[in-house]
Amino acid sequence: MEMNIALLPGDGIGPEVIAQAVKVVKAVGKKFGHTIHFEEAPVGATAIDLIGDPYPDSTHDVCLRADAVLFGAIGDPKYDNDPKAKVRPEQGLLRMRQKLGLFANVRPTFTFPSLIHKSPLKIERVEGVDFVFFRELTGGVYFGEPRGRNEQGTKAFDTNVYSKEEITRLARMGFEAAQKRRKLLTCVDKANVLATSRLWRETVQELAPEYPDVKVEYEFVDAVAMRLIQWPKAYDVLITENLFGDILTDEASVISGSMGLMPSASLGTVNKLFEPIHGSYPQAAGKDIANPLATVLSAAMMFDYAFGLKAEAQAITDVVNKSLAEGVVTEDIAEGGKAYKTSEVGDWLAANV
Amino acid sequence: MEMNIALLPGDGIGPEVIAQAVKVVKAVGKKFGHTIHFEEAPVGATAIDLIGDPYPDSTHDVCLRADAVLFGAIGDPKYDNDPKAKVRPEQGLLRMRQKLGLFANVRPTFTFPSLIHKSPLKIERVEGVDFVFFRELTGGVYFGEPRGRNEQGTKAFDTNVYSKEEITRLARMGFEAAQKRRKLLTCVDKANVLATSRLWRETVQELAPEYPDVKVEYEFVDAVAMRLIQWPKAYDVLITENLFGDILTDEASVISGSMGLMPSASLGTVNKLFEPIHGSYPQAAGKDIANPLATVLSAAMMFDYAFGLKAEAQAITDVVNKSLAEGVVTEDIAEGGKAYKTSEVGDWLAANV
Ligand SMILES: CC(C)[C@H](C(=O)O)[C@@H](O)C(=O)O
Ligand SMILES: CC(C)[C@H](C(=O)O)[C@@H](O)C(=O)O
Repeated sequence: MEMNIALLPGDGIGPEVIAQAVKVVKAVGKKFGHTIHFEEAPVGATAIDLIGDPYPDSTHDVCLRADAVLFGAIGDPKYDNDPKAKVRPEQGLLRMRQKLGLFANVRPTFTFPSLIHKSPLKIERVEGVDFVFFRELTGGVYFGEPRGRNEQGTKAFDTNVYSKEEITRLARMGFEAAQKRRKLLTCVDKANVLATSRLWRETVQELAPEYPDVKVEYEFVDAVAMRLIQWPKAYDVLITENLFGDILTDEASVISGSMGLMPSASLGTVNKLFEPIHGSYPQAAGKDIANPLATVLSAAMMFDYAFGLKAEAQAITDVVNKSLAEGVVTEDIAEGGKAYKTSEVGDWLAANV
Repeated sequence: MEMNIALLPGDGIGPEVIAQAVKVVKAVGKKFGHTIHFEEAPVGATAIDLIGDPYPDSTHDVCLRADAVLFGAIGDPKYDNDPKAKVRPEQGLLRMRQKLGLFANVRPTFTFPSLIHKSPLKIERVEGVDFVFFRELTGGVYFGEPRGRNEQGTKAFDTNVYSKEEITRLARMGFEAAQKRRKLLTCVDKANVLATSRLWRETVQELAPEYPDVKVEYEFVDAVAMRLIQWPKAYDVLITENLFGDILTDEASVISGSMGLMPSASLGTVNKLFEPIHGSYPQAAGKDIANPLATVLSAAMMFDYAFGLKAEAQAITDVVNKSLAEGVVTEDIAEGGKAYKTSEVGDWLAANV
């Protein structure tokens, strides 16, 4: 197969971890006989510094030309804590999601047996956890209008808005995923307070009869925030709106003890983007110590979700498991064993794929 | 002192746990020489069934007449999962908060050594946890207008709105609490996305110089959702808006392993309400098995926050600790030991105060 992959390394440790994923993707391409083209483009603070825009048109063009986007991370401390900053790296991220139509953020939570002891939760609560969030990513309060201030600047407002259509396309992805998994779908909302949540619940209730093999549960976001920690194994597929998804997927990410390894996909009808869930981790940037596994596993998701190539995805998952078993890992998970450099882990993975 | 206390037992186990708190409050009154008058009024599903309104005017009048309100719980499954229900118990709760001006929800999280092993978290993460949330309770997306649907019903919207004034009064409570505690204030927002959050951050930044002894940190809500589970001991006082507070305080409630014991206060300029954080738990209603300790500890908060009577509050905390030490507890925390009835625990506490 011929594949065009856009590389958006972004800020902080982004470039370093993307570089390792590229090594692994190339090795997989060689092994399975694919021709893979890469095209790189700036995003985030890096793009602000270069071009004055966190998601420049030129970067958007690169993404449009590509079959899939591999994304690193964005965010730079110099833009934090300044509520009046005019351009923010995050705006680039949001604009990118919207312009590429990436309406579904897929965030799996699963465990690596060799890392489970790092979980803040007791092992018996975590062992075997396996659920996936489908977070709506291009709607809700992130994009709703009006938003801003009154004239005197003494009042601020945001608008949360959802259409039945937006809810339907996200919910269908959740239903379909549930059909291929343990057949349980949890719709997370705040229908006891929010008009948008009532539309979510109503829409999901209307769709449910089309998926008779899927059991649907409705839970309030505050209850899920508790139960995710108490009984994470109770969940299979969860669907939710943008802001709830932002909070809950991050909460979920600490459960397995392997946050530094968790990949994600952001899917649209046409475009597809893959990225580690960890951030730009500026303290570690440039030191060749960042853990590249989440990005490498995001590349695995890419082979599966963007190209339907499951064997290639599995080959990556396998080599990651092998690196964990043999202790070829970065310092964050080395635990007294030898700590390999980011680039060394990438080289090892590429050589062993 | 002469005190007028409004009792709003509400739904489910509400009446049973309130009854125990009343026993304890009476015993404290007797011991310390206070004259305490109680006036009871319906709220929630109970009030809908009786009067057709989850927060009737007659109940509001009872609250206005009182120096403090002791609240049980509201919510009845017959009103759940019906997105089109016209009257909902929760509406009563929200109307009550607004009409009584209860703008600050105070939710402490602390541990009971004898229960800490019930935490889903590892003991070393939880031991000594001691933080308190100040959740804004009468603003934000819970009350913002416009909210509703478009004409065809295919689009729904909610409005999040905050004024500088609303933020200021809540933030000042947080600053003052921090001054009396470990002097760390965390402002939780989503300032990288929301206009309201930027006003929160800006307002808190403006107030900070008035409290030079308090260290202020600003964290995004998604980061706090993680760090609460990873490093709960890192927090002291947290302030946040209504919806974030709803989610995070519930998440926080599972940390200590003593959710069934956690009290709360909802404070206004004039009115003050105290309630357990657990819900109406309809499955247990009428069985005399519900744990009354959260309501009893809410009564302790009442003596402290509503009347400034710290010795009385301490007397209640002490007798609760004694009941835990001597195993005079309900089945949820009996763990193989004798399980006492709700009413028996109440009698014991009142007798031993
Ligand atoms: C950086 C921020 C705007 C973003 C979001 O809130 O969506 C991030 O938290 C995420 O989840 O990808
Ligand atoms: C019942 C519901 C409306 C309420 C809220 O969201 O405020 C509850 O979750 C709470 O936290 O007291």
